Amino acid sequence: MRTTFHAELDELTTELAGMSRLAAQMMTNASIALHQTDLALAGMVIAEGEQMNARQNDTDRRCITLLALQAPVAGDLRVVIAALHASGHLKRMGNLARHIAVIARLKHPNPMIANEVRPVLARMGLLASQLAEDAATAIEHQDPLSGCRLAVSDDEVDTLRRHLFGILFAEDWPHGVERAVDAALIGRYYERFSDHAVSIARQVCYMATGRMAEPTASWRASDAAPCPP
Amino acid sequence: MRTTFHAELDELTTELAGMSRLAAQMMTNASIALHQTDLALAGMVIAEGEQMNARQNDTDRRCITLLALQAPVAGDLRVVIAALHASGHLKRMGNLARHIAVIARLKHPNPMIANEVRPVLARMGLLASQLAEDAATAIEHQDPLSGCRLAVSDDEVDTLRRHLFGILFAEDWPHGVERAVDAALIGRYYERFSDHAVSIARQVCYMATGRMAEPTASWRASDAAPCPP
Repeated sequence: MRTTFHAELDELTTELAGMSRLAAQMMTNASIALHQTDLALAGMVIAEGEQMNARQNDTDRRCITLLALQAPVAGDLRVVIAALHASGHLKRMGNLARHIAVIARLKHPNPMIANEVRPVLARMGLLASQLAEDAATAIEHQDPLSGCRLAVSDDEVDTLRRHLFGILFAEDWPHGVERAVDAALIGRYYERFSDHAVSIARQVCYMATGRMAEPTASWRASDAAPCPP
Repeated sequence: MRTTFHAELDELTTELAGMSRLAAQMMTNASIALHQTDLALAGMVIAEGEQMNARQNDTDRRCITLLALQAPVAGDLRVVIAALHASGHLKRMGNLARHIAVIARLKHPNPMIANEVRPVLARMGLLASQLAEDAATAIEHQDPLSGCRLAVSDDEVDTLRRHLFGILFAEDWPHGVERAVDAALIGRYYERFSDHAVSIARQVCYMATGRMAEPTASWRASDAAPCPP
């Protein structure tokens, strides 16, 4: 009975890692769709959003069944609680990638990324996808340290967002309000996507140690220390 | 033992309703701070954000303790699961109100709301706060119908956001990029805050019926029917 239960917990974390890889892939494709005004790729990301929602519902159901039938305690209970939280974050990540794909589709066939912001948005998209990949690895290894390190990349996303706003608000921004608002919202979506990846890392820390790491500066500055309280 | 347990479940839902009222109050004050460039009020909202985070952490801990010590099943388990999800939504609502207060503070002493968008943002703020109040009532009554009805107000928020963008993107928008981006982001925060209130209503539906209502058009069109599957 317990052997089956632990196999089910393993399946649960494997599924969460898979969902995180799906989120990474969706964000990569949404970014390509945006930069290359690729309608087909945007459509694929939008369809994958439904898949992500279905997988989140299924994960939730599995967690509830495990709680009802197994009444787990201690570390096992933490895995189920963390899975419940993480699946919610993953669903939102799928939605955020979908938002970017929808913008790419709405603006087609016009290239919607101005040259001035192209590099900064490209870098944000790359980091966001990488954060989702790193979250998947953190879940697989149940390693609070690899999870904690995500905060460093998240800091870079925040810095890039401020840089993006500097470009948009400069007096010589030549592309008008609509393209500036679109770029600001896309920046916001990348930022939120990255925040969710960090939240998953915090759940991994809780899963592995029973403590919920707050992403403090000192935590980010050192990956030699264990996840702080 | 069970009597105490049910008293604890009641306390949990009372606390969630209280958190939802705090979110409503934070959003009301953030909106006033924004429209009247009121620094003190903005500061109060920012401080209340910490209070909301602490209450969410405490609610999470109480849920986990109940799961570990009581191993609830059926309806009792649903209450705890819904509470875990709802407290996450409430934390985000607090953060979104805080974002608006931060914008109000950053722009002080300049009035940051252009006259053209003042009425639409004021209405969005009012609806958002009301949605959080309605979510509190839905939790208190554990009434899936009152919860479901929130989706109607949320539709109005979405419509107002589209109207807002129409104003910002008009050729005669006279206030430049920065104020347009600020208004667009504030609209986005109101929209997300309202979405979270609707998500809480869906959790209330699950809590009361065991089914998770999807906010479909037909559900919104009729409040005579019970929460749909």
